[in-house]
Amino acid sequence: MDFMKKPLTVKTLEEAKSEFSKYWEPSVKKEMISIDDAAGRVLAESVESKIDLPPFDRSVYDGFAVKAEDTFGAEEDDPEELVLKGAIHAGEKPKVRVDEGTCVEIATGALLPEGANAVVMVEDTTEIDENIQIRRAVSPGENISKKGTEIQEGEIIAEEKQKITPQIHGALSAVGIQEVKVVKKPHIAVISTGEELIEPNQELGPGQIYDVNGKTICDAVNLCGCEASYLGIVKDDISKIKKLIKNALTSYEVVITSGGSSAGSKDIVPEVIDSLGKPGVIVHGLAQKPGKPTVVSVIDGKPVFGLPGYPVSALMVFDQLVAPYLREMTAVSESDKKDVQAKLSRKILSARGRRELSPVKVFEKEGELVAQPLLKGSGAITSLVKADGYIEISLGREILEKNELVKVRLFGEDSFD
Amino acid sequence: MDFMKKPLTVKTLEEAKSEFSKYWEPSVKKEMISIDDAAGRVLAESVESKIDLPPFDRSVYDGFAVKAEDTFGAEEDDPEELVLKGAIHAGEKPKVRVDEGTCVEIATGALLPEGANAVVMVEDTTEIDENIQIRRAVSPGENISKKGTEIQEGEIIAEEKQKITPQIHGALSAVGIQEVKVVKKPHIAVISTGEELIEPNQELGPGQIYDVNGKTICDAVNLCGCEASYLGIVKDDISKIKKLIKNALTSYEVVITSGGSSAGSKDIVPEVIDSLGKPGVIVHGLAQKPGKPTVVSVIDGKPVFGLPGYPVSALMVFDQLVAPYLREMTAVSESDKKDVQAKLSRKILSARGRRELSPVKVFEKEGELVAQPLLKGSGAITSLVKADGYIEISLGREILEKNELVKVRLFGEDSFD
Repeated sequence: MDFMKKPLTVKTLEEAKSEFSKYWEPSVKKEMISIDDAAGRVLAESVESKIDLPPFDRSVYDGFAVKAEDTFGAEEDDPEELVLKGAIHAGEKPKVRVDEGTCVEIATGALLPEGANAVVMVEDTTEIDENIQIRRAVSPGENISKKGTEIQEGEIIAEEKQKITPQIHGALSAVGIQEVKVVKKPHIAVISTGEELIEPNQELGPGQIYDVNGKTICDAVNLCGCEASYLGIVKDDISKIKKLIKNALTSYEVVITSGGSSAGSKDIVPEVIDSLGKPGVIVHGLAQKPGKPTVVSVIDGKPVFGLPGYPVSALMVFDQLVAPYLREMTAVSESDKKDVQAKLSRKILSARGRRELSPVKVFEKEGELVAQPLLKGSGAITSLVKADGYIEISLGREILEKNELVKVRLFGEDSFD
Repeated sequence: MDFMKKPLTVKTLEEAKSEFSKYWEPSVKKEMISIDDAAGRVLAESVESKIDLPPFDRSVYDGFAVKAEDTFGAEEDDPEELVLKGAIHAGEKPKVRVDEGTCVEIATGALLPEGANAVVMVEDTTEIDENIQIRRAVSPGENISKKGTEIQEGEIIAEEKQKITPQIHGALSAVGIQEVKVVKKPHIAVISTGEELIEPNQELGPGQIYDVNGKTICDAVNLCGCEASYLGIVKDDISKIKKLIKNALTSYEVVITSGGSSAGSKDIVPEVIDSLGKPGVIVHGLAQKPGKPTVVSVIDGKPVFGLPGYPVSALMVFDQLVAPYLREMTAVSESDKKDVQAKLSRKILSARGRRELSPVKVFEKEGELVAQPLLKGSGAITSLVKADGYIEISLGREILEKNELVKVRLFGEDSFD
């Protein structure tokens, strides 16, 4: 037999992570970007206001700027009359001032003129020739938003690690922020390996299939807030794999391969990775199903993960092993809607002695969520499309009963109907 | 008084929508794009496979391709012995065939050689010199994935209106799809109006404030699956507003303005819109709070919406009035996590005789969601940042009691902690 290798020595996911953490820890990198490009990004530092907000005393309503004292005693049937001195529109510098016995028409948001200390709402006034009758008294400060009462210079507007939602984006704009320091999106290389794989623009030859994982893994990486680059397919050719991964390590922060690392395939990817630098392959094989062909390695300070080739397996192992590290690098917190409780539609028998990840379809039936395990014989693409998520069957369990409540990890928030 | 106008005649949201629908209906436009750019987009038509999947009979395991008949009777302690004729790797065209009494080593995913009709898993075999001992019988077809059993040529892989998730992206790849017809992102123009507004890169003058709605409305538009373009601020200058909206109408499918349309401000935006074409302004003022300054208009087949200038009001009216139309144009279905039930933290008194939208902060307390109404006096930015969503107080209600269960519409799925 020319390509079957010795069985792998396997580690549990927890052992693998603990071993890996001796060689690599995720870290957050930062960059300054224009506020225009900041929507949806994660703040890498808290942002302070450099101005007071409002930047000046402004009127909260359309009405008349007055000296409050001049309105004292004004009532519906006994109004006070003030002389109208002019008008102030929003955005303009007042050219008039309010002296005793006078008032100035003022628009919502306009700067309060000198001499005024309150605003009477237009509804509480009547215009009579050049005069304004005030039918309701106001107290000093009434209907005015004083300079700095919303945000003071130096005050924190948005905190480190906050995502820039539409509202925060607006608030940053409100204080004139032009640039923000955000978490840099890590650049991640994605490589598919396998002698049988070809790209969509090629004609299928005998024994060949189109690559799937390039697209699914890149998308899953991007959903963690990273920037995935698909570097294409490498065939089982040692020198080509070596060259591609080596190049990837110079330009990307993490390299993810899929396929080509099963004990039964040519198994050259882990060997190549191991030859590229220190410490090399740290874990080859997870004690779970699927997971056997998984590779965890570090080459000169950068992680290289090898995922299974079977698409839904690649996605499940990615979610368990790789995604948590990527989210730490992007400070993107996982949605709390990723896990749902559902009732198992049928009994599941699990392999003894190892953890199992079992893909399930999730749907609603009579107001309850149901998790339907996919049939073992389902093909690669059928499972990929049908699976909304997966359940974890722990080491000790051999049977999950029908109608048992299970926790389903969804692949995406909107991944079931 | 030079800028206060007659009170507006108002319509309810439902009346406004019904009136509007006489002049304009949202429609979905389509475009062909490369599969490489398709992640997250919405399919505009169902996609058929042009190939069978698998494209050939392939082995499901590492093992040996055999004639099933040659293995009949094989048992653990009474194996059958077959002559090994060679090996077939994944992706290659078999150079050998399986004749009676022989077998060929085969890798997972490799093309089944001529003459073989089953695969014996490697675990059930022992290699002895040039021969392979088969310790377990297989039936015809066992451990083989037959051509076309996953997907047949002409079969639907993904349906119209489905979002291209990582899994669907992978499945489309699997059948060699190079281009897909997706829903075209509508281009939406966003304009801020107001004499007092300036851009973040300008120095604040007296009475001026930085624009907020440009960012929040653009982001909210993009979250509906559209492509927003911020066209900037126009001051209260009729000819400039006219020119900008007119230009916007030639290049964009929908125009959204904010500010400048309150009865108390210079109120020239609705007038300008109305002058641009037919039917012009359809609704000026919604019978709800906030909503009075809202404008709904159609100019020569394109809608122009005018939103309030107060940021949280603009966002609430956008969510109620504009967002549903945009989502129809993008076929983006709204997440069902947009509405949550929460307990009101305190009593709310509402204005008699009109619907009210009241911004609330949402948080978890002792395992329950609590909706805390924002204080009426909160400033524009304070409300914007604190509001996680809003509740709707219907026409008939004047008091909502403390601890009453209310439905909160969230601005974003991850918008509260």
